[in-house]
Amino acid sequence: MMNKTTQLYEGKAKKVFLTDDSDLVIQEFKDDATAFNNKKKGSIADKGVVNNAISCKLFTLLEENGIRTHLVEKLSEREMLCRYLDIIKVEVVVRNIAAGSLVKRYGFAEGTLLEQPIVELYLKNDDLDDPLMNDAHAVALGVATYEEIAVLKNRAEAINLVLRRFFADRKLKLVDFKLEFGRNKGTILLGDEISPDTCRLWDLDTNEKLDKDRFRFDLGGVEDAYSEVQRRVLDLD
Amino acid sequence: MMNKTTQLYEGKAKKVFLTDDSDLVIQEFKDDATAFNNKKKGSIADKGVVNNAISCKLFTLLEENGIRTHLVEKLSEREMLCRYLDIIKVEVVVRNIAAGSLVKRYGFAEGTLLEQPIVELYLKNDDLDDPLMNDAHAVALGVATYEEIAVLKNRAEAINLVLRRFFADRKLKLVDFKLEFGRNKGTILLGDEISPDTCRLWDLDTNEKLDKDRFRFDLGGVEDAYSEVQRRVLDLD
Repeated sequence: MMNKTTQLYEGKAKKVFLTDDSDLVIQEFKDDATAFNNKKKGSIADKGVVNNAISCKLFTLLEENGIRTHLVEKLSEREMLCRYLDIIKVEVVVRNIAAGSLVKRYGFAEGTLLEQPIVELYLKNDDLDDPLMNDAHAVALGVATYEEIAVLKNRAEAINLVLRRFFADRKLKLVDFKLEFGRNKGTILLGDEISPDTCRLWDLDTNEKLDKDRFRFDLGGVEDAYSEVQRRVLDLD
Repeated sequence: MMNKTTQLYEGKAKKVFLTDDSDLVIQEFKDDATAFNNKKKGSIADKGVVNNAISCKLFTLLEENGIRTHLVEKLSEREMLCRYLDIIKVEVVVRNIAAGSLVKRYGFAEGTLLEQPIVELYLKNDDLDDPLMNDAHAVALGVATYEEIAVLKNRAEAINLVLRRFFADRKLKLVDFKLEFGRNKGTILLGDEISPDTCRLWDLDTNEKLDKDRFRFDLGGVEDAYSEVQRRVLDLD
């Protein structure tokens, strides 16, 4: 049995605890929901349970496809045992269909299918509102080397291929998603979570939004959307 | 004698006219000054004359260094005869020292010397406030191909090397600058202008700002700063 020791970090949606093993941490999923960099706050009932289940399933899927992640095992409803990561302060976003900031910033029509996925880098810095950056910014800011950036982008594209097919089989369009990576013993591993908090997922037939946009834009049915994604991802029923 | 025919375009700082020769246009420099995407407007006495003189000198310098530009010849105080360009809707910014949006967006301390120059791409679109973008955005937006983006970045770095040395010899730090390129008969040429409107230039010894930041931030002595740059660039006195 792995014991939580010191709390290492509390974020918007998760807490991370050290354990007796210096290489392992426990990631605990909360129900707290935030949007627009904390300007909107709320809670989504059982989100922590749902997102932990979805993330563990998707990380296992990625591992099965040769993509290394920080997942060791699902410990409990809200707890994931993970390898300790020196987090790279970059949010890697992959976009298959135009939505969100792609619409707002560049004027794409929402729903436009992109010919090629777009990979974006954002600086992980709440005080600066997680600004978009390019490779040279990331290097100048000292958050990653050019070699690491190349690995992140390449890994993100590989993850996109696996996830897109997986979601399509479950009648979900993977519109876009955010990834975070970290360094562990000289290797870069996928960290954080993959869930309706960090992905835009639309129903394949109806384009119904089944993700955090329901919370962001007060569309209602937030809990139902998260449950529906869980149902499809875990092949329940 | 080249005659202006139809006005092709009127921008914030210049007008462009067609001529009897379909491959040639006349670029006319105005005294109008704008900043913050037109939110601040004004006029700088004789700016058009100064910027035309500086631009013609710098474009000639670049041509002498093997970098092709749209410059054909200086026609008059305010007029530059140029090759017609199919303008690429990308603003290429090169930064040697942190200032402006690099400070605001990423929290660099103003004046920080960057280990490597940073090249940035902005979408040339006033309605969208010229947003920062990466290579994939530019391609998805259809403004350039990956091959063209590579040429733009490479050209921008080469131009930076030439200009930085030229300005240093004249006791000026080239902090950052903006370039625009266009297509002409299958070749990409440097277009637009290079002037205190499009460069940040600081005195090498005092760090006094000798560029449009004096207008942007109401620092006074705007005309004197532009004249001083002209004096040094043209090796007057």
